[in-house]
Amino acid sequence: MAEAAATRNGARRNRVVILGGGFAGINAAIELAKLSVDITIVDRKNYHLFQPLLYQVALAVLSPADIAQPIRSLMRDHPNIDVLMDEAVGFDLPERRVILKTGVELEYDYLIIATGSTHSYFGRDDWAKLAPGLKTIEDATEIRRRVLLAFELAERQMMETGTHPPLNFVIVGGGPTGVELAGAISDIAKLYMSKDFRHIDPSMAQVLILEGSPNILSAYPPDLQRKAGEQLNKLGVTFRTNAHVSDVRPGYVMVGDERIEAVVTLWAAGVQASPLGKLLGVETDRRGCVFVDSHLNPPGYPEIFICGDLAHVEENGRQIPGVAQPAMQMGRYAAKRISRLIAVSFGSDGTGKDEPFHYFDKGDMATIGRKAAVANIQWPFKGHWSGFPAWVTWLVVHIFFLIGFRNRLAVFRQWAWTYLTFSDGARLITGSQELPGWNEPEERSPVLTAKPLDIASPKT
Amino acid sequence: MAEAAATRNGARRNRVVILGGGFAGINAAIELAKLSVDITIVDRKNYHLFQPLLYQVALAVLSPADIAQPIRSLMRDHPNIDVLMDEAVGFDLPERRVILKTGVELEYDYLIIATGSTHSYFGRDDWAKLAPGLKTIEDATEIRRRVLLAFELAERQMMETGTHPPLNFVIVGGGPTGVELAGAISDIAKLYMSKDFRHIDPSMAQVLILEGSPNILSAYPPDLQRKAGEQLNKLGVTFRTNAHVSDVRPGYVMVGDERIEAVVTLWAAGVQASPLGKLLGVETDRRGCVFVDSHLNPPGYPEIFICGDLAHVEENGRQIPGVAQPAMQMGRYAAKRISRLIAVSFGSDGTGKDEPFHYFDKGDMATIGRKAAVANIQWPFKGHWSGFPAWVTWLVVHIFFLIGFRNRLAVFRQWAWTYLTFSDGARLITGSQELPGWNEPEERSPVLTAKPLDIASPKT
Repeated sequence: MAEAAATRNGARRNRVVILGGGFAGINAAIELAKLSVDITIVDRKNYHLFQPLLYQVALAVLSPADIAQPIRSLMRDHPNIDVLMDEAVGFDLPERRVILKTGVELEYDYLIIATGSTHSYFGRDDWAKLAPGLKTIEDATEIRRRVLLAFELAERQMMETGTHPPLNFVIVGGGPTGVELAGAISDIAKLYMSKDFRHIDPSMAQVLILEGSPNILSAYPPDLQRKAGEQLNKLGVTFRTNAHVSDVRPGYVMVGDERIEAVVTLWAAGVQASPLGKLLGVETDRRGCVFVDSHLNPPGYPEIFICGDLAHVEENGRQIPGVAQPAMQMGRYAAKRISRLIAVSFGSDGTGKDEPFHYFDKGDMATIGRKAAVANIQWPFKGHWSGFPAWVTWLVVHIFFLIGFRNRLAVFRQWAWTYLTFSDGARLITGSQELPGWNEPEERSPVLTAKPLDIASPKT
Repeated sequence: MAEAAATRNGARRNRVVILGGGFAGINAAIELAKLSVDITIVDRKNYHLFQPLLYQVALAVLSPADIAQPIRSLMRDHPNIDVLMDEAVGFDLPERRVILKTGVELEYDYLIIATGSTHSYFGRDDWAKLAPGLKTIEDATEIRRRVLLAFELAERQMMETGTHPPLNFVIVGGGPTGVELAGAISDIAKLYMSKDFRHIDPSMAQVLILEGSPNILSAYPPDLQRKAGEQLNKLGVTFRTNAHVSDVRPGYVMVGDERIEAVVTLWAAGVQASPLGKLLGVETDRRGCVFVDSHLNPPGYPEIFICGDLAHVEENGRQIPGVAQPAMQMGRYAAKRISRLIAVSFGSDGTGKDEPFHYFDKGDMATIGRKAAVANIQWPFKGHWSGFPAWVTWLVVHIFFLIGFRNRLAVFRQWAWTYLTFSDGARLITGSQELPGWNEPEERSPVLTAKPLDIASPKT
């Protein structure tokens, strides 16, 4: 089919459309930019987001601008790359066209679909407002708002009534995101906030992870799961496994018949693939990920590549996880494969290498607070690290993979500052000042005397 | 009355309530913290905002966290200061109580009202959605969103139809904010964005200031007005004086019968004082500013101080402008005056100094783009500066007055980076992707061939 396209187009340059400016899309584009092809990247957002650090935006350590870069700026030096802020909503596969939300159709010779995934509330989309997940910058600022606001409202209520609801933060899901959010909330409460409040003791905040499966960090080996559990407990974070959330309500969640109070509930449980996979009319798994062949093509479409979270790729009988490393590798693989197909279509003998995609697994890491992490290292040596060495490794790797020198510098500076001074980034509450499920006191003293805590009495 | 309060309270510590955590409120609090009084700062937001640099957040040079600091963090070292995230909605003046939005009442012995001002649309509040003003962080991110989105939509439309609406940015109001916004938009279009787009030429963007009075920067001396006009023109910014906007509509504004196309309209025209002034039942000017006596008290209330934008104070027959310097000075004055009143109430002879408030005017400055400014300097010498020297002065003064070492460092670094690399902060578009008044093309080519501009053809 690639040959046919080239013939049909005569000497015309091949057109590659990339849907999604995440790790897969950006890496594919940079690789493809070297070729004599015209590339269009389509994304709903105007920026590429370094998602592994998004939880630090949610907890006010970093600013959105530290971990995001406009796709346009990233592609500035590649004149054969177009960036279009739009959204794919359908395909005309026989005509090789992508249909965009604005109604425009985009022709392609090769198509890379890398539109990723979003949270899944397992059919309970009404939970979304009560328990935000963490995928976008908007999500991160919403989580920040809720967490910080909970402390503010507790302080106010304490001043008014002398009591406040317990500061219970509940995180549904014990994967890397859940664990990282939990550690960060615990840090913010215990390390950074305790001097800022006069009436409440922020370090009394409780963080609870509810994990449905038998283990937290279920993709990690058992010894690292155990280490992670120990490190979480050291931070004061508790977790329950085999805990299936049956309902999420304003102010609490239900696990079976048990009601668990939650001043803020966060969602780090389910993921579902972008709906574009299903629109291809090929087989998908239960999350909507597309089953692809060894060249990342959906069956019957050698000109279409599915990359990143949207692809269902198995290696050694295990599905490759939806994280940054495989997405980058898939993007680069697709670009190289397209390069080869074009060469063949222009008369190359095609006897060169035609390798299937192989995931080069360097390992996985998750941080637990500001001093610990677990790392399941696969390369350059195999090893299970935890604690401080794993955390330092995490730090170095994440700064290294940030796209753009400016971001690397900004994040490095901010981390150094935070670590040395115990003061995090500015904890700004923007947007609404309501918190779902926050119960204003029924009775309160009508007049507030505005007397701070007796400063002689120690709080801790 | 101050004596009466002290007597009534016996040996109890005096309670000072400060409404508003802006320049006046923060400076009053820091000064009052030295005294043996209990202080409560009430603000709707949890942060103090360095408003003079807000336009740089709006134009993606700085991040919100660079110019804002949680009030709590600023007051961390003052155990006698309480911070309450709430909003005053009324007063019980005879009982000396402030009524908060939550229904709680806050007792005071002394009250500082420094709730500032907001935009005024001269009774046309329906214009607010079409022409956002610049007072809050939310305003700044909304302006950023609109300005950046206009370029994205133009690029998309250009790809689809080969044409796009002219990129006309209209700013209503030619005071310092209008001039600073205009210069910054022109910079962003001409310096930073031109390499990022393939189909449109961002440097063709037009920025127009519509000023109702006979002069831009009407508070400045005529020679600086003229210089500012020249510097604006050099940046390609045009302005019209005596131009009264009669209507703001999606996609255009009306000046009399003339329709002026505007892909984005921004509001930098009217200001109105916080509604709290009127709730005091004393005389206010047409903007709602409270006429105060020489001690910043509204007539009849020596225990209440009005500071900052909300106060109508005249010196040499001219109203003191609603900017940062006088607000800081008023805040500090009120604190010192309260200190003196307390001393008197506790038996001091009161023969000490009892000076009226005097505004120590160091001058005014406004930047015009990234290399020029006008400065009407009053201290330490008198002078009218313009161009680059004024801009450097502006830079130094603004870094110096940023509250918090962290912010000073962050802003300095970001400015140095921007200036040296010609790359501004991350231009992220968050929130909705709709632009009021943007007309999607009626006819478009149904299929987009996604071919970038011929890279051999020079754009400029």
